[in-house]
Amino acid sequence: MDAEETLDHELVVVDEFDALAIEIKTPLSNKYPAREHAKKVAKELGVENGIIYLPGKLEQNWEDSDMGPPFRQRRYFYYLSGADFSGCAVTYDIGADNLILWIPYSPPQTVLWFGTTPSPAECLEKSDLDGVKYIAELPKYLVPTLALVESLYVLRESQLPRFKSFETLKPHVKIDTTSLLPAISEARVIKTDHEIALIRKAVDVSSVAHKAVCRQLLSLKNECEIEAVFQGSCLSQNAHAQSYAIIAGSGPNAASLHYGANNEPLAGRQLVVLDAGAEWSAYASDITRTLPLTGRFTPEGRAIYDLVAEMQEQCIARIRPGTVYYSLHLHAHLVATKGLLALGILRGGSARDIFRNGTSAAFFPHGLGHHVGLEVHDVGGYERLSVDAARTDGFRALGGKRRPVGPEMLRDMIAAAESDLASVESSSDGGDKYKGRRELAPGMVVTVEPGIYFCRPYIEAYFLQRPEHARYIDAEVLERYWDVGGVRIEDDILVTEDGWENLSWAPKGDEALKIINGETV
Amino acid sequence: MDAEETLDHELVVVDEFDALAIEIKTPLSNKYPAREHAKKVAKELGVENGIIYLPGKLEQNWEDSDMGPPFRQRRYFYYLSGADFSGCAVTYDIGADNLILWIPYSPPQTVLWFGTTPSPAECLEKSDLDGVKYIAELPKYLVPTLALVESLYVLRESQLPRFKSFETLKPHVKIDTTSLLPAISEARVIKTDHEIALIRKAVDVSSVAHKAVCRQLLSLKNECEIEAVFQGSCLSQNAHAQSYAIIAGSGPNAASLHYGANNEPLAGRQLVVLDAGAEWSAYASDITRTLPLTGRFTPEGRAIYDLVAEMQEQCIARIRPGTVYYSLHLHAHLVATKGLLALGILRGGSARDIFRNGTSAAFFPHGLGHHVGLEVHDVGGYERLSVDAARTDGFRALGGKRRPVGPEMLRDMIAAAESDLASVESSSDGGDKYKGRRELAPGMVVTVEPGIYFCRPYIEAYFLQRPEHARYIDAEVLERYWDVGGVRIEDDILVTEDGWENLSWAPKGDEALKIINGETV
Repeated sequence: MDAEETLDHELVVVDEFDALAIEIKTPLSNKYPAREHAKKVAKELGVENGIIYLPGKLEQNWEDSDMGPPFRQRRYFYYLSGADFSGCAVTYDIGADNLILWIPYSPPQTVLWFGTTPSPAECLEKSDLDGVKYIAELPKYLVPTLALVESLYVLRESQLPRFKSFETLKPHVKIDTTSLLPAISEARVIKTDHEIALIRKAVDVSSVAHKAVCRQLLSLKNECEIEAVFQGSCLSQNAHAQSYAIIAGSGPNAASLHYGANNEPLAGRQLVVLDAGAEWSAYASDITRTLPLTGRFTPEGRAIYDLVAEMQEQCIARIRPGTVYYSLHLHAHLVATKGLLALGILRGGSARDIFRNGTSAAFFPHGLGHHVGLEVHDVGGYERLSVDAARTDGFRALGGKRRPVGPEMLRDMIAAAESDLASVESSSDGGDKYKGRRELAPGMVVTVEPGIYFCRPYIEAYFLQRPEHARYIDAEVLERYWDVGGVRIEDDILVTEDGWENLSWAPKGDEALKIINGETV
Repeated sequence: MDAEETLDHELVVVDEFDALAIEIKTPLSNKYPAREHAKKVAKELGVENGIIYLPGKLEQNWEDSDMGPPFRQRRYFYYLSGADFSGCAVTYDIGADNLILWIPYSPPQTVLWFGTTPSPAECLEKSDLDGVKYIAELPKYLVPTLALVESLYVLRESQLPRFKSFETLKPHVKIDTTSLLPAISEARVIKTDHEIALIRKAVDVSSVAHKAVCRQLLSLKNECEIEAVFQGSCLSQNAHAQSYAIIAGSGPNAASLHYGANNEPLAGRQLVVLDAGAEWSAYASDITRTLPLTGRFTPEGRAIYDLVAEMQEQCIARIRPGTVYYSLHLHAHLVATKGLLALGILRGGSARDIFRNGTSAAFFPHGLGHHVGLEVHDVGGYERLSVDAARTDGFRALGGKRRPVGPEMLRDMIAAAESDLASVESSSDGGDKYKGRRELAPGMVVTVEPGIYFCRPYIEAYFLQRPEHARYIDAEVLERYWDVGGVRIEDDILVTEDGWENLSWAPKGDEALKIINGETV
């Protein structure tokens, strides 16, 4: 039985460390598709000749220290190389279709100090490249090639080659420091099959870890233990990095969207929001679950949980190629407004009036989601995904990361959407529907992560002070909900040809409750 | 019963997460002694007037990313402030003995986004400071005070104040960018009681975590699970940062001194070197244990383990105020040489001849230890501790971190020591014994971490190729030892008035074996 065959069907083995409890649904192809990525980038650049040059990250120490943060490869470099160690560079000769990885040479003695670094043969085995050479040879290749090809694409001025012979040639080379970043960003928006497999693996690791937290939840006494179980499970699955700092916020901390102290006792609190995702081979996952700490929801906690679940389900169900993600964000607000009206937290107007007033931003104050890939908030290319991430920032626009969305912004978004729709209706050619907004397409991976929060300082200092919002909020009913803290549910969704696939299978809802309470494993 | 009383005696409670299994031997005093530290620094500066100004770290993202590494405060800033969050500064007016922490203001709405940042009152409660003010007020204080005092001490040019009114005053201020770094480094060499309590707490957390690894070792199948158990235990004790990347090297990986992949199966391997230490309130711990993966040593593994234990015990026993640490390093080599001779790995000469030839550097190729404090390889001040860490690097010399020590360097060290000793003997006033070498003094915390390694690429490519070393090495006997990989044993030692105290109580030797094999808990 060869490896391919082993991976062909689902493999679910659970040992005490969850190390093997992975459902492998897509076999990882053998090599990181660096050449496929390079070709996608060349297509986005729209040129037939030129050299792309990207230096990788160098290991660095903190100031005044001989230690540094964990090594994290530059993502734009990784996309064209698949190389995850210090001191490399990559060149792609567009005309010759020649992708070469340049790696540092490690003399045998350095094994004593740092262990082995990958050899050229190992790099060729890991990534689909035309060649791997030692970086000391780079000038001898790059200078004559550039002299011939004459144009060079780099991410920015500071990433130009730094050796002497390049300096001499430099005045004769057409250097482009602006086109490469948006070209790679756009290429990264649609994931290749190998990328999807890596994201799926990261999501699998995280799903196992979330399940481990459910299993142990009733025995945990402090937020730090939730972090410990989650991270311990990821580490025992050989996932050594997290995609972002783990958020394990209980009680009122659930309403701090980027809470990270994770150091408070759980006693007396209703819910914990656990937002955590492992990284796998530089690819991110991003999953949030909200769990009742006693194994049972209070009526208020249950009502808010069900509402957020409804927001999520309705948004996910609308995902298919051509869906404008932005419209899902507004739809989530409409569902939230109706639900909060039904609970009596909102009152005094119709769902439509309150929605257009932006008052739901008091409770759902962030974007609906973002792309996931080499970054947890992955690049969005030329177009915006959800909220108004700056579109002009060198096209590095992050596609709708969890940014603040205040009521004015929400009102503007709704008004803009209505005007866009009106223009579509009045135009014979379909108009410019949701201009600058990303339509979903097969191969995108996006999060859908609605939430409802009761952040007392935010709601009291802002919404309850302003009559135009306070008139719609029942402060008395709200009193019963402060202790809910907050609920967020987040999954990683692959856009498929005919709809969507939820990559994340971390338990939620009733399934999670059963695991927490030991009614199932 | 108040908190002081509770902490007065040993508290050992073990729950399933080891969260409370801390032996608290020194009560943590209430406040971080920032004022005491500022006074020590002023004394080292040797001036009676002037302003010390240190900006803290600002949260930063990785390039082309909206994420960044975990926040890590600048250590020189922390030493004078005890403030562990982004965007602060500290000023110390030496003449007025006035230490003020300057913190950013967070409007209530930001609670929604990031949770609360410490208030002035909370900062005053945590650290011994004369005042805490909002950083927007800093120019109003600093400019008139500087106009009066006229001299300003900063770590370096790039840390000068950056606001406009300072620019106007600048030509009239005596700016010193060179004295502060060595002054703080020297002050940091001898730890205050509070610092010792924090290091002790970090060491306690790590000792619990090492013990947890012993308990579970026989059920673990991959290096990553060792990392998982260690880090999970630290996290469950609310220690969210490691002092350095965990090293869990099994088999041949034990011989890579900074191995960090931690991703290989344990099957068929003899030993694992686990070098790991948690951080507590910015203070480091650093503990290494070498454990037999099957619960039993092979004869070769046992012989090497016992030899390293002997090296460590003899060196620790020699610690007292006045001991030159450097001499311990040489002593460890002498013990190693004798032991390797007895095992037949070395042969063909007397212990003294082989020692002076530097051949033991083939097997013990790093420094004996280093200071521990705000850095795991803490600053050494003006003098060297162990090996030849550059003494000139702005006095930032790290006191003997695990640097490569080759045979030539070892020979030079021995020759220098002998010449120093000769000069002492021939001089009436005691001469300049071990010049530039740090004598141990009460309040220092240092590691003692001898090791014996069988790093095949290093030994084969270097020592076995050079007749002056190869003649002393029995390659045939060596064959039986490659599979041992390596052994390192490391503890954190407090220098006391009359000797030493081993802060680390992570199980080792026979105690560890009993825990691994379930013969004791």
